[in-house]
Amino acid sequence: MIIAVIGDSSCSPEEVKLAESVGGILAQQGATIVCGGLGGVMEAACRGAKSKGGLTIGILPGQDPSTANPWVDIPVVTGIGEARNVAVVKSAQAVIAIGGRYGTLSEIAHALKSNIPVIGLNTWSLSRNGREDNSIIQVNNATEAVDKAISFAKRRKNHQAVTLSS
Amino acid sequence: MIIAVIGDSSCSPEEVKLAESVGGILAQQGATIVCGGLGGVMEAACRGAKSKGGLTIGILPGQDPSTANPWVDIPVVTGIGEARNVAVVKSAQAVIAIGGRYGTLSEIAHALKSNIPVIGLNTWSLSRNGREDNSIIQVNNATEAVDKAISFAKRRKNHQAVTLSS
Amino acid sequence: MIIAVIGDSSCSPEEVKLAESVGGILAQQGATIVCGGLGGVMEAACRGAKSKGGLTIGILPGQDPSTANPWVDIPVVTGIGEARNVAVVKSAQAVIAIGGRYGTLSEIAHALKSNIPVIGLNTWSLSRNGREDNSIIQVNNATEAVDKAISFAKRRKNHQAVTLSS
Amino acid sequence: MIIAVIGDSSCSPEEVKLAESVGGILAQQGATIVCGGLGGVMEAACRGAKSKGGLTIGILPGQDPSTANPWVDIPVVTGIGEARNVAVVKSAQAVIAIGGRYGTLSEIAHALKSNIPVIGLNTWSLSRNGREDNSIIQVNNATEAVDKAISFAKRRKNHQAVTLSS
Repeated sequence: MIIAVIGDSSCSPEEVKLAESVGGILAQQGATIVCGGLGGVMEAACRGAKSKGGLTIGILPGQDPSTANPWVDIPVVTGIGEARNVAVVKSAQAVIAIGGRYGTLSEIAHALKSNIPVIGLNTWSLSRNGREDNSIIQVNNATEAVDKAISFAKRRKNHQAVTLSS
Repeated sequence: MIIAVIGDSSCSPEEVKLAESVGGILAQQGATIVCGGLGGVMEAACRGAKSKGGLTIGILPGQDPSTANPWVDIPVVTGIGEARNVAVVKSAQAVIAIGGRYGTLSEIAHALKSNIPVIGLNTWSLSRNGREDNSIIQVNNATEAVDKAISFAKRRKNHQAVTLSS
Repeated sequence: MIIAVIGDSSCSPEEVKLAESVGGILAQQGATIVCGGLGGVMEAACRGAKSKGGLTIGILPGQDPSTANPWVDIPVVTGIGEARNVAVVKSAQAVIAIGGRYGTLSEIAHALKSNIPVIGLNTWSLSRNGREDNSIIQVNNATEAVDKAISFAKRRKNHQAVTLSS
Repeated sequence: MIIAVIGDSSCSPEEVKLAESVGGILAQQGATIVCGGLGGVMEAACRGAKSKGGLTIGILPGQDPSTANPWVDIPVVTGIGEARNVAVVKSAQAVIAIGGRYGTLSEIAHALKSNIPVIGLNTWSLSRNGREDNSIIQVNNATEAVDKAISFAKRRKNHQAVTLSS
């Protein structure tokens, strides 16, 4: 199972703690982590995952593998800039968004467009034409985020299997 | 001056009218239109622009130029899927969003990340971590949308010129 | 009709002349030119086209429209780096390669993969596993290049039309 | 160390054997394999690697992780079509090309453009403007391919380290 952890490369100390917890709990549950490979939330999530023996994939925007944070096991070097945000979320069965700015918002949007579930921790909320859109599943702590992400990812996997075999 | 018009390929009759007006007024003001090249809002904006003698660019997600709507003058065939959303907004000096779903939301996010002004008509509104984010300039009609877009685009152009020459 | 002119941003004076001629003759024949938008062969082709009143599209790798050469009418800003090479050739009905290095070679390959005809002027030639591959149509001067490109592009357009209507 | 193995999704039985050997020897040497994730050469290389306990990354062109061959451990889902060829080679410190058609040729070109060494087995050879280009290091068997790839990758890694620290 692959879960994306998304968030900004500059973030608050609180978000660092959240991301590190999320990464650690994901690794304990056996999930591989995919992220954008850079600093801030991405780095904290990878560090958390490595502290629990997890595997981490960083999908980098630039040309240089050395821009990956030190806890990325597999740097995927795309050279396609922000367009790599699409690959970060599509490579996952569920997405956990922690804080984040416009880059994270674009990832949330690309995920929702592909029906990939998005779990939110202190992140964006959306309304369209005056009506709330509740597609982002807002949660309050790291454990809840991981539980939801994994349960949605499993459902999605089964759903895919059903769809593909029918 | 190049202005992006973004919105979904399936949209309400009201949004069709709005997009057609926006396209027409943009063309009258001498702006070139860039869009995602498909149906719905994109098609209506292009049809509006062509009715006033404008030039229209459609940046397509797929491999086949014939997927462009009939009012696209220049189909740019990217083959990169949704990642083409990045190119749609970055090619413009300002963006007008009309209605829209998650694809449009991703374009809004990519634009805001690059400091490209976004004018909204019946579209998304955003809040982050409980606080409203007012970066999308919400307007009420096609004329206002075009006026804002052009005035922001001009300011942005001058700003770029200043930045580049300094 | 849209024809791509491809080649390197640093090139010989001879290649500049060839590219300028190719651009001019294409414009005289009513073709729109698409290219990578930068200097060298791309710039010379655009300058040639503009001297004959043509329309020029530059599909840029970076984030900044001001990196386009001064003879690009429509800068398409992709931000996807070299991956934009795919869009340059796929947006055309035929490709004219003038000189070129590895970037040009990648464009030739992407074009041939999509069955887009490639006309070559002083450019790459290929062999696979010891056998010559004659897919690049090698010609000797600008007029011949444009004639071949336009006649292949027309055939391709008709073929597409037939395929699409059947 | 990450080594890319590239080649077509349809290939000869001989190429299957070569790719399987290459994958197995790479895994034995501790290298992670990155490839385009589909069938043919890509599948054989992954199968070879898994038979020796290696780790395999498949960078997919489409939207669906289930298009990965069964020996891919980490499917990276890009949705960017052929443009993913750029990411396949840039994610590696060296590239081994086995047979291949135009897609493989584009990957060779993107690698050479980024100064990533390319080792060739029964693959393309190049000449430019009438002169042979010997950038592809042609070898005769799987062992030689892996030896060269690993020794070039190490040199490149050291070179990067030097460049980055100076």
